[in-house]
Amino acid sequence: MAGIITITTDFGLSDGYVAAMKGAILDINPEVNVVDICHNIKPQNISQAAFVLSTAYLFFPKKTIHLVVVDPGVGTERQAIILRTPLADFVAPDNGVLSYVIEHFTGQPVTDDSDVRQTKVRPEVEAVVLTEPRFWRTPVSPTFHGRDIFAPVAAFLSLGFPPINFGKAITSVTMLPLPRPHQALDGSVLGHVLHIDGFGNLITDIRGDDLPETAGPLNIEIGRHAISGLSRTYAEGKGLLALIGSSGYLEISLKGGSAHAFLEVEVGGEIRVKKVPGRSQE
Amino acid sequence: MAGIITITTDFGLSDGYVAAMKGAILDINPEVNVVDICHNIKPQNISQAAFVLSTAYLFFPKKTIHLVVVDPGVGTERQAIILRTPLADFVAPDNGVLSYVIEHFTGQPVTDDSDVRQTKVRPEVEAVVLTEPRFWRTPVSPTFHGRDIFAPVAAFLSLGFPPINFGKAITSVTMLPLPRPHQALDGSVLGHVLHIDGFGNLITDIRGDDLPETAGPLNIEIGRHAISGLSRTYAEGKGLLALIGSSGYLEISLKGGSAHAFLEVEVGGEIRVKKVPGRSQE
Amino acid sequence: MAGIITITTDFGLSDGYVAAMKGAILDINPEVNVVDICHNIKPQNISQAAFVLSTAYLFFPKKTIHLVVVDPGVGTERQAIILRTPLADFVAPDNGVLSYVIEHFTGQPVTDDSDVRQTKVRPEVEAVVLTEPRFWRTPVSPTFHGRDIFAPVAAFLSLGFPPINFGKAITSVTMLPLPRPHQALDGSVLGHVLHIDGFGNLITDIRGDDLPETAGPLNIEIGRHAISGLSRTYAEGKGLLALIGSSGYLEISLKGGSAHAFLEVEVGGEIRVKKVPGRSQE
Repeated sequence: MAGIITITTDFGLSDGYVAAMKGAILDINPEVNVVDICHNIKPQNISQAAFVLSTAYLFFPKKTIHLVVVDPGVGTERQAIILRTPLADFVAPDNGVLSYVIEHFTGQPVTDDSDVRQTKVRPEVEAVVLTEPRFWRTPVSPTFHGRDIFAPVAAFLSLGFPPINFGKAITSVTMLPLPRPHQALDGSVLGHVLHIDGFGNLITDIRGDDLPETAGPLNIEIGRHAISGLSRTYAEGKGLLALIGSSGYLEISLKGGSAHAFLEVEVGGEIRVKKVPGRSQE
Repeated sequence: MAGIITITTDFGLSDGYVAAMKGAILDINPEVNVVDICHNIKPQNISQAAFVLSTAYLFFPKKTIHLVVVDPGVGTERQAIILRTPLADFVAPDNGVLSYVIEHFTGQPVTDDSDVRQTKVRPEVEAVVLTEPRFWRTPVSPTFHGRDIFAPVAAFLSLGFPPINFGKAITSVTMLPLPRPHQALDGSVLGHVLHIDGFGNLITDIRGDDLPETAGPLNIEIGRHAISGLSRTYAEGKGLLALIGSSGYLEISLKGGSAHAFLEVEVGGEIRVKKVPGRSQE
Repeated sequence: MAGIITITTDFGLSDGYVAAMKGAILDINPEVNVVDICHNIKPQNISQAAFVLSTAYLFFPKKTIHLVVVDPGVGTERQAIILRTPLADFVAPDNGVLSYVIEHFTGQPVTDDSDVRQTKVRPEVEAVVLTEPRFWRTPVSPTFHGRDIFAPVAAFLSLGFPPINFGKAITSVTMLPLPRPHQALDGSVLGHVLHIDGFGNLITDIRGDDLPETAGPLNIEIGRHAISGLSRTYAEGKGLLALIGSSGYLEISLKGGSAHAFLEVEVGGEIRVKKVPGRSQE
């Protein structure tokens, strides 16, 4: 039976771990198309995995199964889940790695509480905790649920078994506090760097519609630098530039170089977007 | 509909960008086989991408579609093209990334002019500039044509749409000045390092039939070192060796090590191949 | 004809070499599913490739073909072989890269002789040396048998040609000396680091059933550190921990960090597992 399973892990590309998962999948469904999203997530970096997944899953065909194994709690009592959404299925530890997915499909108000918390899933999303060992490889290694639980579950799911066969329905799942920009009293918007991509672009949590409303240009401050106005492409002007990137977030880029290396700003670093003073009077 | 689409980019392996392209392709043609050529092209390094592509595309089945997205001008007026050759189709920005392909199929005399220039395509090659937005994702992100234009065009091409459906025929395309060796008055050949591979081998622009004609052995000078004679395999002798590599170019290799690290010669570095003096009298 | 071919190489991910092999395979069998095991094997590191392969191949479906090209002797008189085992086929240079496979299927007594040696294959394993050029690409590059010999042979094998068609039956193959732990007079077990994974976990040659027999806890010494007792998961306790990993070997891990970076122990480094003194009297 055809179908697509994507894989996102922090396993890197120097071991046999990802291939062991692919083998375990193909052993159950040899016709499924296995596609890598990313295996270079920093070890155990759940929020990076959540973000990278969020930039890719929307573009896959309906009913794609996204397998995400960034799992610092492997072998402990953290739960493993299936999330069936109107677009796609997800198989992952319930540790927040699906936070952007959950936000997207539940429309939950975002938050910047510093605590991880449980969020109710909406009726159109089916959440199931994996409790049925008959879908697992045996024996299950306590250190590699990716190979022995997640991969076979994704493979059987691709064969058409309904999620509820794999365990018990649950009504709430774990959500990371997703960083969100603040609006200051002067109307400027204060955000944070969410992700640094392979080009050294700094991708922030400020979306296009979070930008201050103004007819005039904007001033963007990051590190010790200021950028005047938004660009449309990476090729405009020279030096630092700011633009709305392909996932809808404000990005800082350095033409012909790495904004990350130049600015020395890391994930979590602050960025401020201001209206240019006086312009509103024009 | 089956078929093969290869992808070459400078997106690296730490983001969701390549996967977003794969998702966009599979969303249109879920049966196509997507194969990575390379995603570790240095950011915006068009000539490196052109070279790496040239070492791989010839080995794929006829009618394979090669998608190349190394695109510093994304979102600007640079054109996006389809090139249909007797062997394979190519979908790429018209920025020179297909220079070796064009050279191969047009047999254009090579040049070492330092200017990028337009080259006429031969009748057996069909070139089309992409102007038909009905084959694109909407909205098109000005910063990610790979996902929103190139990937869907390649996918529709794999479904059998003729190239001309995607836009307008053009008669010339952009060509990088491909480095080529010179012959000196004394008959020695002066070339350059084209590419440094993952083993640290220095691959030069000197092809087997560029070598000086001589019954005797050759002397190869690179950096401050000289290598006497050509080897047949990487396993011969010890230390530095020179051989004709698997893509037909003269390569410098260090047995059990990296010639690149040892010689500290970079892409563009010079290499000289001389006849051994006196030997021709023998 | 469907089927699976996996590839393991030391070619890295920055060149077109792996893709050239995939192209050569798909040119012969366009329906085969090509799956990467690992391409980041250190250049010419046969024992690392042998180990990484051993952690992945067991999980693939029966009749999978595993292609392994870590081949310092390419172009020399080293032989190229097919190994048909009851589980899977292997296509590789006969340089020891299949040592764990051979050990698994022949049950040969392991050894820590320092010499590479020939090992008889058991009757249930068919070994063939590749001598039939009609299955190869022509001309064969003396530096890239992966593309010109191994890939096409694996592809034709996936089409159902019997191994003996590709050459001549042989009765012994090359085996690396696989490191194995010793038992000391005091009952403690002395082992070595086999592999360091992408998380910095140190994977040793001590298997679960090599551990000293004792009702009490164990003491594990590595570098200048000692670890008391075995953990079940990476998430237990803090600091250094020891556990039996997903491939059955004793591993040393650092919670939230890299044991490799912390301990500065390399592949080949020693590890000792002792019974805790006095505990046997309890």
